[in-house]
Amino acid sequence: MYNLKDDYSEGAHPKIIESLVKSNLVQEDGYSMDSFSKEAIRLLKQELNNDDVDIHFISGGTQTNLLAISSVLRPHEACISATTGHIATHEAGAIEATGHKVIMVDTEDGKLNKKLLKPVLQKYNFEYAVKPKVVYISNPTELGTVYSKEELKSLYDYCLGNNLLLYLDGARLASAIALEEMELSLENINKYSDAFFLGGTKNGALLGEALILSNDEFKKDFRYILKQKGAMLAKGRIMGIQFKTLLEDQLYLKLGAYANGLAKYTNNELRNLGIEFLVDSPSNQIFPILENNLIKELRNSFNFYDWEKISEDKTCIRLVFSWATKEEKVKEFVNIIKNFKGIN
Amino acid sequence: MYNLKDDYSEGAHPKIIESLVKSNLVQEDGYSMDSFSKEAIRLLKQELNNDDVDIHFISGGTQTNLLAISSVLRPHEACISATTGHIATHEAGAIEATGHKVIMVDTEDGKLNKKLLKPVLQKYNFEYAVKPKVVYISNPTELGTVYSKEELKSLYDYCLGNNLLLYLDGARLASAIALEEMELSLENINKYSDAFFLGGTKNGALLGEALILSNDEFKKDFRYILKQKGAMLAKGRIMGIQFKTLLEDQLYLKLGAYANGLAKYTNNELRNLGIEFLVDSPSNQIFPILENNLIKELRNSFNFYDWEKISEDKTCIRLVFSWATKEEKVKEFVNIIKNFKGIN
Amino acid sequence: MYNLKDDYSEGAHPKIIESLVKSNLVQEDGYSMDSFSKEAIRLLKQELNNDDVDIHFISGGTQTNLLAISSVLRPHEACISATTGHIATHEAGAIEATGHKVIMVDTEDGKLNKKLLKPVLQKYNFEYAVKPKVVYISNPTELGTVYSKEELKSLYDYCLGNNLLLYLDGARLASAIALEEMELSLENINKYSDAFFLGGTKNGALLGEALILSNDEFKKDFRYILKQKGAMLAKGRIMGIQFKTLLEDQLYLKLGAYANGLAKYTNNELRNLGIEFLVDSPSNQIFPILENNLIKELRNSFNFYDWEKISEDKTCIRLVFSWATKEEKVKEFVNIIKNFKGIN
Amino acid sequence: MYNLKDDYSEGAHPKIIESLVKSNLVQEDGYSMDSFSKEAIRLLKQELNNDDVDIHFISGGTQTNLLAISSVLRPHEACISATTGHIATHEAGAIEATGHKVIMVDTEDGKLNKKLLKPVLQKYNFEYAVKPKVVYISNPTELGTVYSKEELKSLYDYCLGNNLLLYLDGARLASAIALEEMELSLENINKYSDAFFLGGTKNGALLGEALILSNDEFKKDFRYILKQKGAMLAKGRIMGIQFKTLLEDQLYLKLGAYANGLAKYTNNELRNLGIEFLVDSPSNQIFPILENNLIKELRNSFNFYDWEKISEDKTCIRLVFSWATKEEKVKEFVNIIKNFKGIN
Repeated sequence: MYNLKDDYSEGAHPKIIESLVKSNLVQEDGYSMDSFSKEAIRLLKQELNNDDVDIHFISGGTQTNLLAISSVLRPHEACISATTGHIATHEAGAIEATGHKVIMVDTEDGKLNKKLLKPVLQKYNFEYAVKPKVVYISNPTELGTVYSKEELKSLYDYCLGNNLLLYLDGARLASAIALEEMELSLENINKYSDAFFLGGTKNGALLGEALILSNDEFKKDFRYILKQKGAMLAKGRIMGIQFKTLLEDQLYLKLGAYANGLAKYTNNELRNLGIEFLVDSPSNQIFPILENNLIKELRNSFNFYDWEKISEDKTCIRLVFSWATKEEKVKEFVNIIKNFKGIN
Repeated sequence: MYNLKDDYSEGAHPKIIESLVKSNLVQEDGYSMDSFSKEAIRLLKQELNNDDVDIHFISGGTQTNLLAISSVLRPHEACISATTGHIATHEAGAIEATGHKVIMVDTEDGKLNKKLLKPVLQKYNFEYAVKPKVVYISNPTELGTVYSKEELKSLYDYCLGNNLLLYLDGARLASAIALEEMELSLENINKYSDAFFLGGTKNGALLGEALILSNDEFKKDFRYILKQKGAMLAKGRIMGIQFKTLLEDQLYLKLGAYANGLAKYTNNELRNLGIEFLVDSPSNQIFPILENNLIKELRNSFNFYDWEKISEDKTCIRLVFSWATKEEKVKEFVNIIKNFKGIN
Repeated sequence: MYNLKDDYSEGAHPKIIESLVKSNLVQEDGYSMDSFSKEAIRLLKQELNNDDVDIHFISGGTQTNLLAISSVLRPHEACISATTGHIATHEAGAIEATGHKVIMVDTEDGKLNKKLLKPVLQKYNFEYAVKPKVVYISNPTELGTVYSKEELKSLYDYCLGNNLLLYLDGARLASAIALEEMELSLENINKYSDAFFLGGTKNGALLGEALILSNDEFKKDFRYILKQKGAMLAKGRIMGIQFKTLLEDQLYLKLGAYANGLAKYTNNELRNLGIEFLVDSPSNQIFPILENNLIKELRNSFNFYDWEKISEDKTCIRLVFSWATKEEKVKEFVNIIKNFKGIN
Repeated sequence: MYNLKDDYSEGAHPKIIESLVKSNLVQEDGYSMDSFSKEAIRLLKQELNNDDVDIHFISGGTQTNLLAISSVLRPHEACISATTGHIATHEAGAIEATGHKVIMVDTEDGKLNKKLLKPVLQKYNFEYAVKPKVVYISNPTELGTVYSKEELKSLYDYCLGNNLLLYLDGARLASAIALEEMELSLENINKYSDAFFLGGTKNGALLGEALILSNDEFKKDFRYILKQKGAMLAKGRIMGIQFKTLLEDQLYLKLGAYANGLAKYTNNELRNLGIEFLVDSPSNQIFPILENNLIKELRNSFNFYDWEKISEDKTCIRLVFSWATKEEKVKEFVNIIKNFKGIN
């Protein structure tokens, strides 16, 4: 049985394991003051081509989101998210638990834009309702769609002009950046957001996300915020070592590209077979719509999530590819479909 | 320069590293549903000699404390802690951030008892003040002192009789259990508390604490609580693998005994030199009071914390020993003191 | 200029003022332990035909909602409300500020029912999302529509069968009860809910809502909750005196019936003129759709809220009638419309 | 049985009742936008000799404290209070419920000063602990002691120099201002604080405190904060009318002086009888230490609080005088003591 359920079924990329083994008995300062974390921060700033940012390593995405967002909101301020956004439906009310409403906006493809935000600001403009302050997006989105550089810039400009802060959840950011047609880079993502994170957990690390704060509103006293929410690991070195390794020779980007490649291959093969998709996603998650009979057959050898029932006999499934996914397994998966369709 | 500052200066115990390497590319379910976590839970239940507990792995101590305590409190309920308790002064207001007061009680040695709790319940007995519900202790305490089995039982009985829940922070619990004279074991700690955690981070793991919930008030829906606070790691396996290794052949206990041994050695040697201590602590942290000149000399080769100024020319320092502390380094440390005292 | 904007433009019903004057210099215990509050509670329990409830007087509706709802929720639990519900959009994120998500459900007429709740429970059934616990409704709703006894019973039965608590916001409850066709009474509202409040502010009092808790989950330690949120007034007598007066000879019901009468009169007159309404509301708020020209003319003598733009030349307005609204003013209002329509 | 228990045993001052009666049926805008509130604000600004403040009326003291303090704190910031401070022990954890620690400082007489604050700032200077931001004081304090103008100025200067905000709880402020020797006035209290409130509830109003915000950090969006916590009354007029009346011809000050006069009279008479006091308080609360036998006798005709057991046969009681306390009753009280002492 092979897992195409997610991008966190395995441990860490071998280079990361190697770094952990090698550094294991070196004595270091605790709480992310170790030399590895410092070097990872240096490498990341170099990649951002910007020294004027604060960087913190945090163990997971939900924690990173709640820490960053709650740190800048006054009690009556709120966060705007797509209805499909991770904070809106997959974090068990994490933002609300810090005291703040998540204003949900319906979208076609998981992406927010100026046109969708405008009516929200018109509606939430008075003391009877909460006051929008942070706009939350993820790139790629939870539907695998990607904001291009142009879209991101446009959204950021709108936020800037409307006293909103733009926060970007980059749990799978390497996959987005690795898509050349999007013209993204860590440098321009930093330029067109107030804060964002580069995900490690879903891109080869055992755990860890790198939170980059560029707007001063986020920066002040952030280590207090980390400490208070239990996010400051005694052995912060474990995240420093991993991000140092992911950043050396842009390993993070290579892993993102590899996962994208498998997704694209599968995408193409399935489209050639006339298979439809829930949404057109270029990143490492895809959402094909398959016959229930076919799904049943695939489940003999593969694990994956049912995403949504489409009709009586068709279901949309989610496939996720990662740095660890084996090419031959993907081919095997496609072949089962080809056989089912009578092609082979 | 050698670190005696804390018990988290190195990475993980070599056996843990070995387990991580070995398991690295095995596909597993996420969010602590992996086979390693299941096996670690099985081993821990065996050690507890109790199947009727819920066990969760959480990345650090502050997070474990705030999750467990806030999960059982209604808005007006509060937590009692020694003034020296970790949640009272070293967690940046983590409990208060969940909406609950920490009632602080002055103690002589960091330990709470029936006699200290009684006046608190007499004072906090009316709707003008908060209502005490959870009693927080740590074993060993932040001063290295240890509750014996008898003391723990007595405190638990008092809580039971006064509608209080007893929660035990076991960040360094292995050190306490390894002290035979205390007659402690995971089994009786579980018996005489409503919830407690066995610390991994300070006893050989890269990260991770094992939270054991025995009282049903804590158990219900706890995975929701984990998720909401961002404490459920995608690759929960990293904690499962480590605790499995720590529990096999009671490795956790051997590491605790080793650290205690170095502390005891140092303790004895220093007492023989007439050196006084802030408090009589049998566990892996000790608090000798040294001349400032001597401290200056020690700092040429060793790192450690100044704990408290005692007089113009004397200071109490904290020394921490761990599974990774080298015997010859400890001897070197003691020898510097002997030389200073003109003994050698 | 005459106000038809709301039901809180005047002070208190003359009988209430009389009671306040008469009792003014009598010494009484503070914090709602006064004899007037006790008598009001006695009268209310008599009206409920139930002695096994706890009753608290609270200064306003938003505060009552947030106190009651937050008192029974654990951190991961949430509240379900119609999208038009007061807590969903008109309380500035009051519930979220206590740490809990409000799950919003679209409705046709502001009312929830079994059919609308079922898919919510199907979706929110796992630790990734919050866990629904309280169902919030208001009767009448924010659209003036009313749950009949039958509808309320059916909803309550559904909640009972699905481990949900039903909480009813009765800011304008007297208006609903005064509608005979709904077969409502304080007695059956109490029977078919876990907690509810009878509004005073919008029905003749200067301030005050009477919160009735019948389910034990709400009752315990509620005075702590009141105190902690600053809701326990030193001179609680001011609410006791008012509710005592409102309950004597069912004054509350007479005031509700009076307001309903004016609404019904206006409703009938306008329908006879062929005017359409946004929704069919039998209570003291109505929502006619008028030509903008007519609205402009009405505004020469009357104040009221624009509710919603319907088309280029038509707007829905909200008219609210109360115990204090003068009949001749309502007739004057209707006459302006008749003149505009060329009837008079 | 006559009450000397508190200053809220009666209703409102007759002039206030008169104003309520007179204004009762006038239509006004809701939510403190009425003409009475506007006039009260105008009068208060005149009294402050300052136009650059924001003023809000809130129903009670605990609510005012929690609203103001929580509105300016980021998650990791805290409030400093005397251990005897109202927020520290008499508000059921109201501040903590908003997520913030109250750092408690032991004092001799309930008053904070530079010397007491300095060690707090030295201790709380690092991310392991919360970060002090607001200093809470009350004037008069909970022990009836009073900060003079000079003491207030000195404390404010210290706060200004240490990045702290000074917030003053003025539940009984009129009593403090009415003491000429303190050289206080609304004008200089405003000058030497960042925010404060002038209490109405304990000085002749049915309910209501006037919160004055002078520092811009407090001002922004405060109506959102009011709304979110349920503190914005629909009939805000009830507070506007009362404060308008209290401010006209400085009625508030006359009532404060009257209460002080009775306290002073009692104080003098008792001191002449050799009776000792817990603390030397010049304001409307006094704390004599009496024989238990005497107390028993007084209780035949008077109600008052036992404050603290002093010895086996002596207890400190609290006596509170107000605008409504009758002179002849106070004389009667003193006479019982004189008789007991064998003087009469």
